[in-house]
Amino acid sequence: MVSVGVKTEHASALADVLVAADYRGHYSHGLNRLEMYVQDISTKICDGNAIPTIEKDKFSTALVNGQNSLGPVVGNFCMNLAIEKAKKHGVGWVTANNSNHYGIAGWYSIMAANQGLMGLSFTSTSPLVAPSRAKNAALGTNPITLAAPALNGDQFVLDMATCTVAVGKIELQRRKGLPIPEGWAIDKEGKITTNADVAMKGCLMPLGGAEQTSGYKGYGLAALVEIFCGISAGATYGPNIRRWMDTKRKANLGQCFIAVDPECFASGFETRLSDLMSHLRHMEPADPNKPVLVAGDPERAHIALVDSEGGIRYHVNQISASASLAQKLNVKPMEHIA
Amino acid sequence: MVSVGVKTEHASALADVLVAADYRGHYSHGLNRLEMYVQDISTKICDGNAIPTIEKDKFSTALVNGQNSLGPVVGNFCMNLAIEKAKKHGVGWVTANNSNHYGIAGWYSIMAANQGLMGLSFTSTSPLVAPSRAKNAALGTNPITLAAPALNGDQFVLDMATCTVAVGKIELQRRKGLPIPEGWAIDKEGKITTNADVAMKGCLMPLGGAEQTSGYKGYGLAALVEIFCGISAGATYGPNIRRWMDTKRKANLGQCFIAVDPECFASGFETRLSDLMSHLRHMEPADPNKPVLVAGDPERAHIALVDSEGGIRYHVNQISASASLAQKLNVKPMEHIA
Repeated sequence: MVSVGVKTEHASALADVLVAADYRGHYSHGLNRLEMYVQDISTKICDGNAIPTIEKDKFSTALVNGQNSLGPVVGNFCMNLAIEKAKKHGVGWVTANNSNHYGIAGWYSIMAANQGLMGLSFTSTSPLVAPSRAKNAALGTNPITLAAPALNGDQFVLDMATCTVAVGKIELQRRKGLPIPEGWAIDKEGKITTNADVAMKGCLMPLGGAEQTSGYKGYGLAALVEIFCGISAGATYGPNIRRWMDTKRKANLGQCFIAVDPECFASGFETRLSDLMSHLRHMEPADPNKPVLVAGDPERAHIALVDSEGGIRYHVNQISASASLAQKLNVKPMEHIA
Repeated sequence: MVSVGVKTEHASALADVLVAADYRGHYSHGLNRLEMYVQDISTKICDGNAIPTIEKDKFSTALVNGQNSLGPVVGNFCMNLAIEKAKKHGVGWVTANNSNHYGIAGWYSIMAANQGLMGLSFTSTSPLVAPSRAKNAALGTNPITLAAPALNGDQFVLDMATCTVAVGKIELQRRKGLPIPEGWAIDKEGKITTNADVAMKGCLMPLGGAEQTSGYKGYGLAALVEIFCGISAGATYGPNIRRWMDTKRKANLGQCFIAVDPECFASGFETRLSDLMSHLRHMEPADPNKPVLVAGDPERAHIALVDSEGGIRYHVNQISASASLAQKLNVKPMEHIA
């Protein structure tokens, strides 16, 4: 990022979020995305050095103009502001326009949880999901995240797209020549498909899948995210958001960052949350080999694995993609430590 | 409710919420529930005349003790407080403990939307939903609602349980002798069932259904609701909540009410929301007979039907159930206007 003109501080902010994604096991949102961010900068469609500005400010709220800076720069700015407001007024609710892809949503909610607060974040994304009953896409994978502190550093970390699965999961099935479950995707005519090839040309389905399994709820949640993001912040929204990987126009993404101080409510929040999480984790599983988990547990397991191995293990394709990007940018490639 | 000792003002508050449910077409949450509320009062397990009190108050937040009053009395108190705070400070985030069933969640979010604000509400409920991978229930149907104002009185009104479907839908299939779709329920061993009879003895599944269709996201959302409600407010939560229809101990439900002033962000909120809703409603449907809807549209259609008919049309079973309740309580029954 520095080699294409981004100042070190901003490049670091992006690096932190990408590495956090890989560390947590969400490789799709990590180093895998670096080339996209490089492209956004080298085509000058994103201003890697811009500083976000506050456009409106009230006790518990703020509207931030991301000034088309890197998503993590905007995100960190907004969540820090929300945290400051939550500490003073109980809640901080900050929306941003003129932002860009900000990486894993959980990065921002965890920032708040690390300070003893509940943290939430939302971002609208390029349209890939078809509303229930529709033939075409109009909404993004629109993630919702909540992180909340429990005892002894434990945390509840929900970080979920509001569609059934990401495109990446369909791609994976296609590569393996396997079908996809009903509820993942529709074909070009709006019919549910189990053919991964056909699905790649169709649309993703909202969480819940078909109407009879309440897919309209996932559709409603995706719309909620649009309302908290682009609709509130005056950014692009729904079908107006630029297509995925488009670098012909600015992203102007809308995002939302919320921090809430649980101390404003009943004392003992962390104790109760730990008690609930402990109950859930110790429930009898239907399959003895698959323990009941709490949101954040799969990521914690991956983090423990990385720690025990002393580093993040990348797929050979990622290593070679990173190496050729390094060569293209004339920078030192990652070193192997295998 | 007055005949069992509830003061008129509180009985009216309950009546408003129950009738609103029927008016919107959600008959399960309307007059159908009256007997349950009567029971809560006549067994003295709920105090119909209690007045909620504010236990903690900060700029944008409050903790309310519902004093075991009727759910709608607590809910109205809390949402009015959230609205007042939102108008002053941008956001009002109020949690309540010691509450009872508050009817349709959407009643409270719409209160805020009617004043030009975004409104959200959440309530935890008796455990009926099995966490992903678990054999037994630990979480409620835990609804989430967001209402937001659009132009000319139009509103986005999402009001959804975080499980796939309510128990009532399974009962209906059972009565008809029909199977249920995969993703609605599990049997006693934690296996997905399509047998409505077996499902009634098992548990509801979270939104998303099986693990391969991301049911853990619905599970995560149900947990989010617990965190906003019982965990934050210091009320009962998850497996500690009393069983459905239990009148042996107080409900001590936790609830959460949020109001946010969109004027604190980019101006033109209602215009953008109307534009998005209009786009969605005009999308090409997969089935020409099933137009694409926006959250709140099915309820608006039902309201228009009731208005055109001059009254709410009840099923004959409801009429006779209400008549026998009236007789039991020695009050005048509903009049037929057919």
